[in-house]
Amino acid sequence: MQFSSVLLSDAVESFSSLPGIGKKTALRLVLHLLQENPNATKNMADSLVNMRENIKYCSQCFNISDNDICQICSNSKRDKSVICVVRNIKDIIAIEETGHFFGVYHVLGDLISPIDGIGPDDIRINELEARVDKDEVKEIIMAITPSIEGDTTIFYISKKLSQKEIPISTIARGVSFGGELEYADEITLGRSIVSRVKYER
Amino acid sequence: MQFSSVLLSDAVESFSSLPGIGKKTALRLVLHLLQENPNATKNMADSLVNMRENIKYCSQCFNISDNDICQICSNSKRDKSVICVVRNIKDIIAIEETGHFFGVYHVLGDLISPIDGIGPDDIRINELEARVDKDEVKEIIMAITPSIEGDTTIFYISKKLSQKEIPISTIARGVSFGGELEYADEITLGRSIVSRVKYER
Repeated sequence: MQFSSVLLSDAVESFSSLPGIGKKTALRLVLHLLQENPNATKNMADSLVNMRENIKYCSQCFNISDNDICQICSNSKRDKSVICVVRNIKDIIAIEETGHFFGVYHVLGDLISPIDGIGPDDIRINELEARVDKDEVKEIIMAITPSIEGDTTIFYISKKLSQKEIPISTIARGVSFGGELEYADEITLGRSIVSRVKYER
Repeated sequence: MQFSSVLLSDAVESFSSLPGIGKKTALRLVLHLLQENPNATKNMADSLVNMRENIKYCSQCFNISDNDICQICSNSKRDKSVICVVRNIKDIIAIEETGHFFGVYHVLGDLISPIDGIGPDDIRINELEARVDKDEVKEIIMAITPSIEGDTTIFYISKKLSQKEIPISTIARGVSFGGELEYADEITLGRSIVSRVKYER
C-alpha cells in the first residue's frame, strides 16, 4: 500500500505492528484518529506511554499492578491460603470476571515448552515454591488450559511441590456449559468421559 | 472487565475507543506492548501524535499530504487535465494500487446524504468547480461507489458542471472480475445488464 504522506505511512506502520492488525485496518484506525479531535490522539498516546513506563508487577503474584503489591494480594478479604496458578494476567481477568474465586493468584508468565526453548527456570515456578515455603498454603489450583505444554507444566509443578504435601487441584475439564456434544472436540469429550463425576441424587 | 491496575485500564480504554476494537482485543494489544521493548510503545505513540498534529491536506485535491501540495498533484508526470473525483483518501489509495490511473484526484470528503444532514455545501463541490474554472480540465471521472448517496452526488455535480461542457464519466459498474453471476446482488446484476457493453469482434 502506497501513501502520499510519510506521516500517514508511519502512523499506519506503527498500528500494523500490533498483532492481528493489518495495513487496511491500521489505515482505518488512523483515518478515524484524523476525524477526531487532536486531543483524542494525544490522550491515547499518553495513556499508552504512561502505562508502558510506569506499570509494575506485583512482587507476590506477578499480576500487573500500579503498586508493589497488587489490589488482589493486598485485599484483606482474599484467602491467602489458596493460590490459583495461571499462565498470564489475561487468565486472572477471566477468572475474576466469574466472581467464583476468592483466593490469590500466581502468574507463571508462560508454560513449559521445550520446542519453544521455554524450560522450568524460564517461568515463575521457583517463585511459586518460595511462596509455598513462606506462606501457609492450603491448596494450589492449577488454572492452566489443557494442552501438551499445560499438562507438562502442571506435572512439573506437582513433582516439584510433592514433598510439601499441599493438595493440588486442576480446574474441571469437560464439555462447556450449554455445549453440544457433537461440536466438542474428541480430546475434550474423551477426557470428560474418563473423568466423569458421580451424579449426586 | 475489571483490571487490577488503573494504568492498564486506561490503556485498554484508549485502544477500545477505536472503531472495531473491543475490550478483549484492546487488552490483547496492550499486553503485546507490555511484552515488547518500552521504546516500541514510545515510538508508536510519537508517530501517532506527530501524524495527528502535523498532517496537512493538499490545497488542490484535499488528499492527505506532508506539504501544501501533495505528491500526486506535484508530480509532473501526472495528467492534470483528468480529475478523478473520490469520496475519501482511502479511495485514492485503492485506485493508486491499481496502477491504472495517471491523472489527479479530488477528494469530496463525503457524499450528499440529506438523511445524515450532509448537503452539497458540506462536501468539496465548490472547490471542484473552482478547479475546473482555473485549470484546463478535459475529463472528470466519478469514482464513487454506487449507492443512493453516491448517485445523488454524481447527479448534483453533473448538473452543477453542466455548463462547462467537460465530459463526465463514472467508473464501470457491473459484475466483478471472476465473480459468479449467482452471487452478484440484484442491483449490480440488473445494472450490468442495462449498461451492457458492445462486444468488439
